[in-house]
Amino acid sequence: MGLLVLKFGGTSVATVPAIENVANKVAAEIGRGHKVAVVVSAMSGVTNQLVKYCTEISEIYDPREYDAIVSSGEQVTSGLLALALQKRGVPARSWQGWQVPIMTNDIHAKARIKSIETGLLRESLDRGEVAVIAGFQGLAPDGRVSTLGRGGSDTSAVAVAAALKAERCDIYTDVDGVYTADPRIVNHARKIARISYEEMLEMASVGAKVLQTRSVELAMKEKVPVQVLSSFETALGSDLPGTLVEDEENIVEQEVVSGVTHSRDEAKVTLRNLPDVPGVAAKLFGPLADAAVNVDMIVQNVSPGGERTDLTFTVPRADLPKTIEVLKESIKSLDGAQFESSADVAKISIIGIGMRSYAGVASKMFKTLAEKGINIQVITTSEIKVSVLISEEYTELAVRSLHTAYGLDGEDGKA
Amino acid sequence: MGLLVLKFGGTSVATVPAIENVANKVAAEIGRGHKVAVVVSAMSGVTNQLVKYCTEISEIYDPREYDAIVSSGEQVTSGLLALALQKRGVPARSWQGWQVPIMTNDIHAKARIKSIETGLLRESLDRGEVAVIAGFQGLAPDGRVSTLGRGGSDTSAVAVAAALKAERCDIYTDVDGVYTADPRIVNHARKIARISYEEMLEMASVGAKVLQTRSVELAMKEKVPVQVLSSFETALGSDLPGTLVEDEENIVEQEVVSGVTHSRDEAKVTLRNLPDVPGVAAKLFGPLADAAVNVDMIVQNVSPGGERTDLTFTVPRADLPKTIEVLKESIKSLDGAQFESSADVAKISIIGIGMRSYAGVASKMFKTLAEKGINIQVITTSEIKVSVLISEEYTELAVRSLHTAYGLDGEDGKA
Repeated sequence: MGLLVLKFGGTSVATVPAIENVANKVAAEIGRGHKVAVVVSAMSGVTNQLVKYCTEISEIYDPREYDAIVSSGEQVTSGLLALALQKRGVPARSWQGWQVPIMTNDIHAKARIKSIETGLLRESLDRGEVAVIAGFQGLAPDGRVSTLGRGGSDTSAVAVAAALKAERCDIYTDVDGVYTADPRIVNHARKIARISYEEMLEMASVGAKVLQTRSVELAMKEKVPVQVLSSFETALGSDLPGTLVEDEENIVEQEVVSGVTHSRDEAKVTLRNLPDVPGVAAKLFGPLADAAVNVDMIVQNVSPGGERTDLTFTVPRADLPKTIEVLKESIKSLDGAQFESSADVAKISIIGIGMRSYAGVASKMFKTLAEKGINIQVITTSEIKVSVLISEEYTELAVRSLHTAYGLDGEDGKA
Repeated sequence: MGLLVLKFGGTSVATVPAIENVANKVAAEIGRGHKVAVVVSAMSGVTNQLVKYCTEISEIYDPREYDAIVSSGEQVTSGLLALALQKRGVPARSWQGWQVPIMTNDIHAKARIKSIETGLLRESLDRGEVAVIAGFQGLAPDGRVSTLGRGGSDTSAVAVAAALKAERCDIYTDVDGVYTADPRIVNHARKIARISYEEMLEMASVGAKVLQTRSVELAMKEKVPVQVLSSFETALGSDLPGTLVEDEENIVEQEVVSGVTHSRDEAKVTLRNLPDVPGVAAKLFGPLADAAVNVDMIVQNVSPGGERTDLTFTVPRADLPKTIEVLKESIKSLDGAQFESSADVAKISIIGIGMRSYAGVASKMFKTLAEKGINIQVITTSEIKVSVLISEEYTELAVRSLHTAYGLDGEDGKA
């Protein structure tokens, strides 16, 4: 049996009894003959409390001190899990980022992992110890602790799995896998057994908040199979109880469409009567980028007379007020341009590797929505995804209709 | 102006506003031209919570993991204080024990500082930064975090002061100095302006819980002047508002008796009818030492006939049940011996460097107590201390009488 990397998030280690539960899962994998490295987050709520202390002192803070402070949460859980394993007779030791070391770049608070020294870790694993590694943290070139940004523990886990050439990285979370659609909306949504990295990336970017995007990118780059599973519901002993994210080559039966996602975290901005000359887009999107507004879907209409044009784009709903502020300034230099905005929109996406080989996938989406009387405001596509912006009130209807249209409905609820 | 080391305990950094208050004090010392290194404890209550997590998992735990867990508290406060200083325009950075590094021995959870590398610290101080050092922790030879045991932050501060050859180490705590007696008992108790290391050591060992004993020992060895002062009441700008603990040579006007202390944390055990032969004491005190009971005052009476003797000693009151258990076993081999115990005792001590040069100091103590009708049960003396064990109900009367007898009363309450 090979090496497994198991990652447990904040809700999985929120209390001492929860940590004991995690220790049972780790002990079970040891019992099945695996070597195990574990990556842990901070107890749920702890990181928020630590961030709150920082912002109470100053809204603008030194990210090196922020890192020293917030990295303490993972340090505590790694030690506690090591103790809980030792109590079960499983040799274990905790590792802080600087002890491994997990080397990062120098962008404190948003650091990226550059390399992981595996020498000490391997010696420990070869002695039969479980390595319990504090997630979310590393050692910056300045010799100080760095953190990877929110959700960074997923990335830590995948990076450790890649460095140790692990058989698999199991990400334990509070959902038991990736679904064909949000089960709260679609009764007949099915858990997906296997999904490609590319599809998972598209899902992560359009609202399925199961895995952090960076961790999927890294897994794809390093070809680390990643399983998403629940730390609360998963039956011990089952071989692959969650959703396995892996290389598409390993997925024998590919669906044309793997899933339908939705995001209400959208707002739409339309600019009318723009001069249709070079540099207009730069004048609009430059200041938005400076204001850290992440523009998503962009559609520019063909201008009939060749002199004026319309432009529509979406931004995160929370950034709409900031976007309006910035645009009020920007359009002053764009003679006669006007803009309007709406937050009552939702983005619906269909995602599937199979789209590459099948024609008519997008047109089925448009036809399905049209039959339900749902107007499409904006369309964007990628190689394996079609996204449409619709009026928010049609969200559930759209998701359910598409789920049925692409043959994703399970027989009897969760399958 | 030279370098000051300031140490702030858990109550001084218990909340963000308290940390802001500490930052003001540090900024004031910077404003007066000092270079400053600060040593901080964890926020009050945090270490207890972390220890509780450990013991919830297992009463017997790996001290290396315990150290990884509990050292996180100081890490957080050092970062927060650095942020609060930066907000005030005072350059500052936090230092964890492993970053300095503060090297300790390998006795995890009760480590002792072996050496402190000052190279990086000095560079930082020379750049004009305040060094905010996490107390209570260091780096063990195994490359893992070690902690110094409870109260270890005082020791960290004195060790840092010694390593950096600081002008003084100021220990900020929740009392404003060392008093001639407990002000809760003696209205006319006076704050002592200057006291010798030796006297402070004796005071620390007999109940005046202002400074941790090890830190005073270290200060004496390294000749570091230590000031005890309050982080809440001290007026800024006063030169020496607290009590300065220093070499006796520097104290010009020495009192014969500097202070009167009391401790109710005592229990008395008397063994009767012991065989007066070699090895008896070993048979009694060996098993108590094995049970980690710290025996304090020991008095063996001269045996009249030469065959049987009585022995009285004191133990911490909390250890009395354990002591009784151990003795029940021990006396089985001491034919005919019996024992009795009492927890209703108090130890009263007078302490003063001046005792060395003046005769009659102890006899004045006995006479004073006799005049008040207080019976002395046990007497022990050191070069600069006389301690007596009395019935607990006379504690306040004894302390007040002695305070007056040795001329320690102030004019109008606190002086």
